[in-house]
Amino acid sequence: MTTADIAKQFTAALKAGKFEEAERFWSDDVVSIEAMDGPMKEARGRAAVHAKGEWWTANHEVHKFETSEPFVNGDQFALRFSIDVTPKESGKRTHMDEVGLYTVRGDKIVEERFFY
Amino acid sequence: MTTADIAKQFTAALKAGKFEEAERFWSDDVVSIEAMDGPMKEARGRAAVHAKGEWWTANHEVHKFETSEPFVNGDQFALRFSIDVTPKESGKRTHMDEVGLYTVRGDKIVEERFFY
Repeated sequence: MTTADIAKQFTAALKAGKFEEAERFWSDDVVSIEAMDGPMKEARGRAAVHAKGEWWTANHEVHKFETSEPFVNGDQFALRFSIDVTPKESGKRTHMDEVGLYTVRGDKIVEERFFY
Repeated sequence: MTTADIAKQFTAALKAGKFEEAERFWSDDVVSIEAMDGPMKEARGRAAVHAKGEWWTANHEVHKFETSEPFVNGDQFALRFSIDVTPKESGKRTHMDEVGLYTVRGDKIVEERFFY
């Protein structure tokens, strides 16, 4: 598969809210990197990245989560996210714009890196 | 300077159309990488990247060029571009959405990579 094929299928799963299907595109040693320092800065391996997603979902009330079509270059693709969310801890509804950068190797996503 | 500082100043120069000022943030051996194969795929060094920009400007009629605020992670930042343009060769007005990913080292931009 090309990077564009993987990007398209992964993005379609995200848009449909089918996270299990999206995770099938992860490499077992996928790494997830946030921009901010802290315990969530870097998650390594399928179990840790899955747990990070579970934590996020459990701790945020999501009002809207929009994902763009993928933007591709070589073995990487980018997605733009527009998120309307209330973190349960603060209770303060906020809008977040992000860019996610995904790196593909051997038909699997080996890294996701978030910019904001 | 932090990556965020450089990103902010570089972006402000782009938004103002001050390309000479933006180029001051380039490293002398800056590399510019397009997603498509062809003669513009990779330009290496300040002179080549500048020439690529000149070529683009000379060959496109730009109706609108919108640049987002920067999205930062570590030594990289991303920009989202929304471009309304007529390539002079085709004469066909088109809309392009892109993501630009910039890598900073030693307070200079050493790489720009475009996703579409």
